[in-house]
Amino acid sequence: MTKAWEIATAMYSEDAYSQWLGAEILEMEAGHCVLRMTVREEMTNGFKIAHGGITYALSDSAFAFASNSQGRKAVSIETSISHIARVDIGDVLTATAVEESLSNKIAVYHITVVNQNGDKVALFKGTVYRTSKEWEVEGSP
Amino acid sequence: MTKAWEIATAMYSEDAYSQWLGAEILEMEAGHCVLRMTVREEMTNGFKIAHGGITYALSDSAFAFASNSQGRKAVSIETSISHIARVDIGDVLTATAVEESLSNKIAVYHITVVNQNGDKVALFKGTVYRTSKEWEVEGSP
Amino acid sequence: MTKAWEIATAMYSEDAYSQWLGAEILEMEAGHCVLRMTVREEMTNGFKIAHGGITYALSDSAFAFASNSQGRKAVSIETSISHIARVDIGDVLTATAVEESLSNKIAVYHITVVNQNGDKVALFKGTVYRTSKEWEVEGSP
Amino acid sequence: MTKAWEIATAMYSEDAYSQWLGAEILEMEAGHCVLRMTVREEMTNGFKIAHGGITYALSDSAFAFASNSQGRKAVSIETSISHIARVDIGDVLTATAVEESLSNKIAVYHITVVNQNGDKVALFKGTVYRTSKEWEVEGSP
Repeated sequence: MTKAWEIATAMYSEDAYSQWLGAEILEMEAGHCVLRMTVREEMTNGFKIAHGGITYALSDSAFAFASNSQGRKAVSIETSISHIARVDIGDVLTATAVEESLSNKIAVYHITVVNQNGDKVALFKGTVYRTSKEWEVEGSP
Repeated sequence: MTKAWEIATAMYSEDAYSQWLGAEILEMEAGHCVLRMTVREEMTNGFKIAHGGITYALSDSAFAFASNSQGRKAVSIETSISHIARVDIGDVLTATAVEESLSNKIAVYHITVVNQNGDKVALFKGTVYRTSKEWEVEGSP
Repeated sequence: MTKAWEIATAMYSEDAYSQWLGAEILEMEAGHCVLRMTVREEMTNGFKIAHGGITYALSDSAFAFASNSQGRKAVSIETSISHIARVDIGDVLTATAVEESLSNKIAVYHITVVNQNGDKVALFKGTVYRTSKEWEVEGSP
Repeated sequence: MTKAWEIATAMYSEDAYSQWLGAEILEMEAGHCVLRMTVREEMTNGFKIAHGGITYALSDSAFAFASNSQGRKAVSIETSISHIARVDIGDVLTATAVEESLSNKIAVYHITVVNQNGDKVALFKGTVYRTSKEWEVEGSP
């Protein structure tokens, strides 16, 4: 198991809310993460489509796993999301986090969320502050 | 009951996810909304603090109620949030939506989230596209 | 000359500020644009590096040309930019606009700005409202 | 002269681009700044209104002065702006920076830009990383 997987696994095992979402980690490398989940009825808003908080949360988890998997604890500073297509009950969402920039203190990620047809439903951009605390995970080198 | 309350009440009654959050409407006027909720354990992330998706979702609900309560159905275009202080289990969060700008097609809101001590924990900014569809709520003039 | 080039050329010829920047159009297709400029001393701030307004302006021009070149007049709704590396006098900046999403009313673009070494210096995200007014340019079909 | 004014004056005196804009400092306190400028023809875009880069730049200068005037050198991490009303040649723009949040490493500001009639034309939000380097200005205590 790579260190990136170990960090993400350690985070996920404590992450009650990502578990509630039903998020599953499909890919995990330093700075990169792919998550998938299925939208349930309890996740919808007054228009009977997925609440904006759901696609945000999935993106935010992918962002957290991708940024922390670089090895140092990373704290979200600023995030934005555009909801560009409706998301219905039963839709399967896949969020892919890509590292756009990594410096000593700051890193920036783009997360794209698509549905089961490959249509983009949300575009997320996130910036973290990278603390000096290293992740210590069992078994990592 | 004012039209703003009727619209928000109609939205909330169908909004399974805001109900799951435990969000309560404290104030409601056209373009303005105050929501309150308490953070539960199942809402936390791998750092054992509230997942970013929780404060986002509360803000996003306040944003939706405030913008729709102007009478026309409003669709979120772009939102951003800064998480500026940690949120723990048991914290009581209050989100206040203020209308910064309202034109025929576009409106912008700032939502500030504070905890039970009045400390700001998140700053949210949201923009909606205002469709031409009017809300029709029972009993409204 | 394609319609995208004609629209961008028509816009640029009236765009005093993009001319002041010294922006040059390198590539132009519907939804896509590449601009280049060189940073001059009068464009610097109190730290003797390029003012944030310069990389923003170059990105914003690329965003405007890319979005309008789809044929309908497009109005900027919300934009964000991360300044991720310093920009010095004499640096040659290239801004590339990519269309992330296009719907009837709303479109979203990512603009990446790199310097002469290919290092990313800024990440811009912009959303437009697409009006119903068509661009009428001479010679277009 | 307060330390906030001294820092802003030191920054402004080296800031060629804010001078080109014609920005004038009207108010200056730690974490707070008001700037004013008049829009000139060379600042317009292809629609013959102020280029988005102009209101951005004015806001970004107010943001830089407000954040640095807290005493430590501050670096912009992420900024966003909504252009909510047209700005014409001759318009007098006033940008007011308000500190929304200040912690050891991170601070957040809202900058509101109004025209000579008091109409809001732009809403800017900015986040800085606060370095450990103190501003040293002559005559400050």
